[in-house]
Amino acid sequence: MFSHLKDLQFEAKPDGPDAAFARRLQEILGGKWGEMTVANQYLYQGWNCRLPGKYKDLFLDVGTEEMGHVEMIATMITRLLENAPLSLQEAAAEENPMVGAIYGGANPAHFIHGGGGALPVDSVGVPWNGSYITASGNLMADFYLNVAAEAQGRLQVARLFNMTDDPGVKQLLRFLLARDTMHQNIWLAAIEQLKEDGLEEMPVPEAFPDSGELTEEFGYTYLDFSPGTDASEGRWAAGPTPDGKGEFRYDNSPRAHAPEPVLPPGDPRLYGTEP
Amino acid sequence: MFSHLKDLQFEAKPDGPDAAFARRLQEILGGKWGEMTVANQYLYQGWNCRLPGKYKDLFLDVGTEEMGHVEMIATMITRLLENAPLSLQEAAAEENPMVGAIYGGANPAHFIHGGGGALPVDSVGVPWNGSYITASGNLMADFYLNVAAEAQGRLQVARLFNMTDDPGVKQLLRFLLARDTMHQNIWLAAIEQLKEDGLEEMPVPEAFPDSGELTEEFGYTYLDFSPGTDASEGRWAAGPTPDGKGEFRYDNSPRAHAPEPVLPPGDPRLYGTEP
Amino acid sequence: MFSHLKDLQFEAKPDGPDAAFARRLQEILGGKWGEMTVANQYLYQGWNCRLPGKYKDLFLDVGTEEMGHVEMIATMITRLLENAPLSLQEAAAEENPMVGAIYGGANPAHFIHGGGGALPVDSVGVPWNGSYITASGNLMADFYLNVAAEAQGRLQVARLFNMTDDPGVKQLLRFLLARDTMHQNIWLAAIEQLKEDGLEEMPVPEAFPDSGELTEEFGYTYLDFSPGTDASEGRWAAGPTPDGKGEFRYDNSPRAHAPEPVLPPGDPRLYGTEP
Amino acid sequence: MFSHLKDLQFEAKPDGPDAAFARRLQEILGGKWGEMTVANQYLYQGWNCRLPGKYKDLFLDVGTEEMGHVEMIATMITRLLENAPLSLQEAAAEENPMVGAIYGGANPAHFIHGGGGALPVDSVGVPWNGSYITASGNLMADFYLNVAAEAQGRLQVARLFNMTDDPGVKQLLRFLLARDTMHQNIWLAAIEQLKEDGLEEMPVPEAFPDSGELTEEFGYTYLDFSPGTDASEGRWAAGPTPDGKGEFRYDNSPRAHAPEPVLPPGDPRLYGTEP
Amino acid sequence: MFSHLKDLQFEAKPDGPDAAFARRLQEILGGKWGEMTVANQYLYQGWNCRLPGKYKDLFLDVGTEEMGHVEMIATMITRLLENAPLSLQEAAAEENPMVGAIYGGANPAHFIHGGGGALPVDSVGVPWNGSYITASGNLMADFYLNVAAEAQGRLQVARLFNMTDDPGVKQLLRFLLARDTMHQNIWLAAIEQLKEDGLEEMPVPEAFPDSGELTEEFGYTYLDFSPGTDASEGRWAAGPTPDGKGEFRYDNSPRAHAPEPVLPPGDPRLYGTEP
Amino acid sequence: MFSHLKDLQFEAKPDGPDAAFARRLQEILGGKWGEMTVANQYLYQGWNCRLPGKYKDLFLDVGTEEMGHVEMIATMITRLLENAPLSLQEAAAEENPMVGAIYGGANPAHFIHGGGGALPVDSVGVPWNGSYITASGNLMADFYLNVAAEAQGRLQVARLFNMTDDPGVKQLLRFLLARDTMHQNIWLAAIEQLKEDGLEEMPVPEAFPDSGELTEEFGYTYLDFSPGTDASEGRWAAGPTPDGKGEFRYDNSPRAHAPEPVLPPGDPRLYGTEP
Ligand SMILES: [Ca+2]
Ligand SMILES: [Ca+2]
Ligand SMILES: [Ca+2]
Ligand SMILES: [Ca+2]
Ligand SMILES: [Ca+2]
Ligand SMILES: [Ca+2]
Repeated sequence: MFSHLKDLQFEAKPDGPDAAFARRLQEILGGKWGEMTVANQYLYQGWNCRLPGKYKDLFLDVGTEEMGHVEMIATMITRLLENAPLSLQEAAAEENPMVGAIYGGANPAHFIHGGGGALPVDSVGVPWNGSYITASGNLMADFYLNVAAEAQGRLQVARLFNMTDDPGVKQLLRFLLARDTMHQNIWLAAIEQLKEDGLEEMPVPEAFPDSGELTEEFGYTYLDFSPGTDASEGRWAAGPTPDGKGEFRYDNSPRAHAPEPVLPPGDPRLYGTEP
Repeated sequence: MFSHLKDLQFEAKPDGPDAAFARRLQEILGGKWGEMTVANQYLYQGWNCRLPGKYKDLFLDVGTEEMGHVEMIATMITRLLENAPLSLQEAAAEENPMVGAIYGGANPAHFIHGGGGALPVDSVGVPWNGSYITASGNLMADFYLNVAAEAQGRLQVARLFNMTDDPGVKQLLRFLLARDTMHQNIWLAAIEQLKEDGLEEMPVPEAFPDSGELTEEFGYTYLDFSPGTDASEGRWAAGPTPDGKGEFRYDNSPRAHAPEPVLPPGDPRLYGTEP
Repeated sequence: MFSHLKDLQFEAKPDGPDAAFARRLQEILGGKWGEMTVANQYLYQGWNCRLPGKYKDLFLDVGTEEMGHVEMIATMITRLLENAPLSLQEAAAEENPMVGAIYGGANPAHFIHGGGGALPVDSVGVPWNGSYITASGNLMADFYLNVAAEAQGRLQVARLFNMTDDPGVKQLLRFLLARDTMHQNIWLAAIEQLKEDGLEEMPVPEAFPDSGELTEEFGYTYLDFSPGTDASEGRWAAGPTPDGKGEFRYDNSPRAHAPEPVLPPGDPRLYGTEP
Repeated sequence: MFSHLKDLQFEAKPDGPDAAFARRLQEILGGKWGEMTVANQYLYQGWNCRLPGKYKDLFLDVGTEEMGHVEMIATMITRLLENAPLSLQEAAAEENPMVGAIYGGANPAHFIHGGGGALPVDSVGVPWNGSYITASGNLMADFYLNVAAEAQGRLQVARLFNMTDDPGVKQLLRFLLARDTMHQNIWLAAIEQLKEDGLEEMPVPEAFPDSGELTEEFGYTYLDFSPGTDASEGRWAAGPTPDGKGEFRYDNSPRAHAPEPVLPPGDPRLYGTEP
Repeated sequence: MFSHLKDLQFEAKPDGPDAAFARRLQEILGGKWGEMTVANQYLYQGWNCRLPGKYKDLFLDVGTEEMGHVEMIATMITRLLENAPLSLQEAAAEENPMVGAIYGGANPAHFIHGGGGALPVDSVGVPWNGSYITASGNLMADFYLNVAAEAQGRLQVARLFNMTDDPGVKQLLRFLLARDTMHQNIWLAAIEQLKEDGLEEMPVPEAFPDSGELTEEFGYTYLDFSPGTDASEGRWAAGPTPDGKGEFRYDNSPRAHAPEPVLPPGDPRLYGTEP
Repeated sequence: MFSHLKDLQFEAKPDGPDAAFARRLQEILGGKWGEMTVANQYLYQGWNCRLPGKYKDLFLDVGTEEMGHVEMIATMITRLLENAPLSLQEAAAEENPMVGAIYGGANPAHFIHGGGGALPVDSVGVPWNGSYITASGNLMADFYLNVAAEAQGRLQVARLFNMTDDPGVKQLLRFLLARDTMHQNIWLAAIEQLKEDGLEEMPVPEAFPDSGELTEEFGYTYLDFSPGTDASEGRWAAGPTPDGKGEFRYDNSPRAHAPEPVLPPGDPRLYGTEP
């Protein structure tokens, strides 16, 4: 069960409106790596978590915080949408050459559909969807995904930081960057904790019995599918594997292990073309 | 530029058909974490990679291999679709009680749309789409995502391994499990290599100048948004942060830092309800 | 069965082209609340309607009219797309500063995919899809949805009216506004008619037997999930409920009625992390 | 800003597992009219609301409650997924004829992707997306939509009530039915309140100046686009209009008001076929 | 402008209900190659057509007929949904083993969302969307697409014909097969007519000036990207090209014409990993 | 199994960057008729092909080549994205009026999500998805679709050719135009080959036994659903049908063959409104 505090987690007023930047800011609200994604991902991971105690709480705490980030960014976008040029004629009437760029660079649905408010969409305008999130039940797999989500998220916030001069917006982005720093650290720490607790190792799922001879032949060999040997110079081609269970090998001319497949004739009731 | 060898990378014949399992196997072909995702993700990461040499090759080698995995699984699915019951009447005519379950558990589009062939969809039947992949240009962010992709992928293959008794199918899954083991190791090794080469650290992007006082206050503090202190027992609430740059703190009653937001009246030409 | 008249329902010629407004006008053609939505929604409601006579006809009449609105707006968009700047170079060659804004504000798919014709997409360019419509079989539920659809639709047309100076376009929008006025009235009248005919009341579905003590405790109580009592000042916190069956109550500190959920360990064959 | 209570709003344990019903229950979690929709719709309506005080709180209170409903249903689904047959062979091994129906009727992604946990998808398995929600800024339009959302939602819960015999599930559905009763009443009361406060009337947007002669001719006339006069028997064909501003008229042979459109030749650089 | 006749184009009553077949029949209603696709495709092609007279009429006539096919199939599906088992318990209670298969093979949204009525979705349950249709403005390109659409459509109807024993359903499918035969012929005839009228030839767009030396080297050469020469045995490797403008050549070892691409370092403000 | 050559099939360097054109060029990379579509379509057609030898090879050769086209266009887009204006302020600071148009006309996700690299999306920014491709198993149906795909594809490339002045880009487009010319010819030749080999004729599927009297009445008759007889002037209204099996007829007033449908009352447990 949730409750809501009317105040915001952090101060978030822009110095001035900018409808074109509002469209861009949508990426970290409703984009693949935006706040709706992390909020929903962590909440679903928490609801589906079978370990009561610190792990379940971890997911639900961070997920609940992210709901507050959704709120802050939605509020910021709504403020950035003020005073936008609604028509080409209005844009042209202004002396400021930026107005035309704002008109072209804005998302028209912000006005026609949203009435000047934020939308659950990305910087293009494509709606957020549930396939963006994963809650697999395997905590190691999900912790790595969460590290990746926060890394991609912080990367996008950092890029947006360079796309505006507005001090108020920049201050909000600084706050989000700081929290993304923390969240990357949280999920990395959770990976360590999971190992310490003896619950999962690499590769995921660790519990799967090995594939016997196939592991020997295919489980630690780098297959180079192009001419040249540049790829042999990396850490992935020689030395111990990071999971501590094998030794990398390098194969510069991977071979096929099965002949060209010949399919049986299909069911004639499906009217496919058959031999 | 690519070329194609008619042979397959690994032997892939089922002992018998099973249209219901064919639908399930689609998850690792056209699902969010399936072979189409990793193939396209690594190829786009390679095409967009600005570092010539071992990193660019790494992406393109593994991506090219995954195209061959797409091919093997598509071929397997087509073989599993043979001799499926097309109608309820046909299903009922069989004495075998499994035939009704196959009928109900199959994807009808396999027959009506695909004519008995594999489709670029997941186990539900939802088409694969480009939002499943990310090529951000930042290799550390993408390597963590690739570890996650291979972990989720291997997890799904391991689950499917438990969903069939067919020895031929199991052998193909063993091969894929072995390669996913290798690929998890590859991307973990690539993270190490990137650090060794001095190209990126945590948090991503490392190059972003810190957020000053905000980092101090918000960059290393665990915010617990629910009653109780279970979450304080994890690695994420005390001790050094995994990025080596801070010390975790724990805050059991996070406070709001901004008052309730009051929006300005909107543009009257948008006909929103205003104060 | 349908037939088609070559003439249009209303005169619809723009005074001049405007590719950027054409993109915006797509919202009421292929957007969530556009003409494709209402046309298909009413037709499906009619085809699925189990009441022969006035109700079935109502759906099919209005749905058939909306097909004609789709036609008019598609034609208008095609006309607005004439003479658009195709390249940056062409846009820059014009002395008119609006041309750059048109170039940036247009939907490139109108030209590359549609060859200068209307598309079944919204103002962003996202394709119309079948999830926009609902035909539930319960007429009261659907009539309220239809009121909402016409209200959202008229709102969007009114906003677009303020986004252009073109007299011909404004005349078409005036016509659509008038018909949306009528359609809002139609569905409100249909709600009245349904009640008069004794077919359905509020809440929907009225026929569902009440939930006993749960109704008593939960069916008429406003739960205020945030600090403060602003919400208690509304019509929804005291007095008789609009369905005439209860009395509003107000609860400023809603409590949880179930302990923290603890999930059982999952199936080990799924390799989730378990206690 | 949000906080989370570990307890649930209402008791929600099934008496036994049923993976096929779990798939169906997803409709009210991640379907078009499910809890994710109402939670997000009301929260966005609240965040974008320009009226401080009771209206803004109303949206945020109800939205926050709906987040708790998402949590309860997700938890229920996870519990219903226990002990499901993973393979056809396993299904066939059971003597119980229901096991085959469960196998066929389940969503395989629940196991392969979700590891036995709830997903943000509908009863088919299609992911929830942001186009399901609308926050238009016009409160009358949105209140009618909210009535419709709660009516469709309660209708679906009532149908699901008839699709299971499990007493624990039925008890949860009773609770949701009671809250949906309240929520229908809330939004109907909000419509009354909005009128009392003089903020908006029908048709929406009321503030739009009428369309002059077009309103006279098209704003109150029922156009019957099919043979026969059944439609003339409804409340929508005669008498005062529900908005109190006109009188219904009925036209049995609507005429076209514009000739067949003839489009200009297009831009030859687009290679369309031209006269 | 359209009008609607209450009667159907063809008799369409099933002898009995079958909810599992109803789900399958959705493919030709709301699937990629279903009636919603052809109806909308031809209507948009007609609305965007710049040639008044026989071509524009052709599109609009056939599109209008397809609207009537949508209606017939929607009606059929609604009839097939009668008396379906709603719950597992109900399915198990029947002695008929087919009931479990119907339960598993049905689309639950037909009941929960649609209330027993047809939906604008395909046989999986994925909603129809506007990207299924194309109206390019180039009639030759669109006529070939229309031939393909009718061929895929007729193929699917023929497959469905083999998926049911119901004489009433089979009779409807026979009617649709007959019309699809006609429609394939129509679009093939339209290709001939277009050539006769001198409006377009192959390749499309014929008006594009040739690519000079590139045409010579690349415009008529079959590139074989795999070992072996099987592909050289086809009509596409030797002899005159079907467009009458060239002579096929065959190249068994296509070479690359550009070196490995080396990208410039990116904008440092985007924080990509750079050399 | 695939292998990758580091070199590109054709030289592809732009003379200068243009982020707005990069967005447009995405249409032929990740749009409905772009290279990702043809690559995947031909590969799936090949993998599902039941005819070993020249037909299977044909699909896989051309599909493999298209993978190389995906690579070239992705590389070109990445190069075109260099030096784009990231912010409104930056755009305004330039004296060049084109910079504002580039800012408005660019896809912000290219920078925020893709870090300056190509994305698997179309010119609007909508992700590519698997429903764009069809591999039906019937070669005649698929060959016609492939002709259509290449015709639509070449049309789009020809339009893009007119949307840029960059000689390097134009040279790449010339190459693609030449290959599309070849590919149109290939699939037309494949249609001829299939007929020569006696494998399939028109209409598709030719093997379906005719519909008896229904074919007589409905299989060759043009139904004109609008007033006037313009449509009778086409090749489709008289003379032999292109499949060589009938004679066109023309019916200017098609009649309904079934009365208005009256649906049975539905299942009361679904709470639809019933008579
Ligand atoms: Ca965050
Ligand atoms: Ca793989
Ligand atoms: Ca309308
Ligand atoms: Ca609720
Ligand atoms: Ca048809
Ligand atoms: Ca190509």
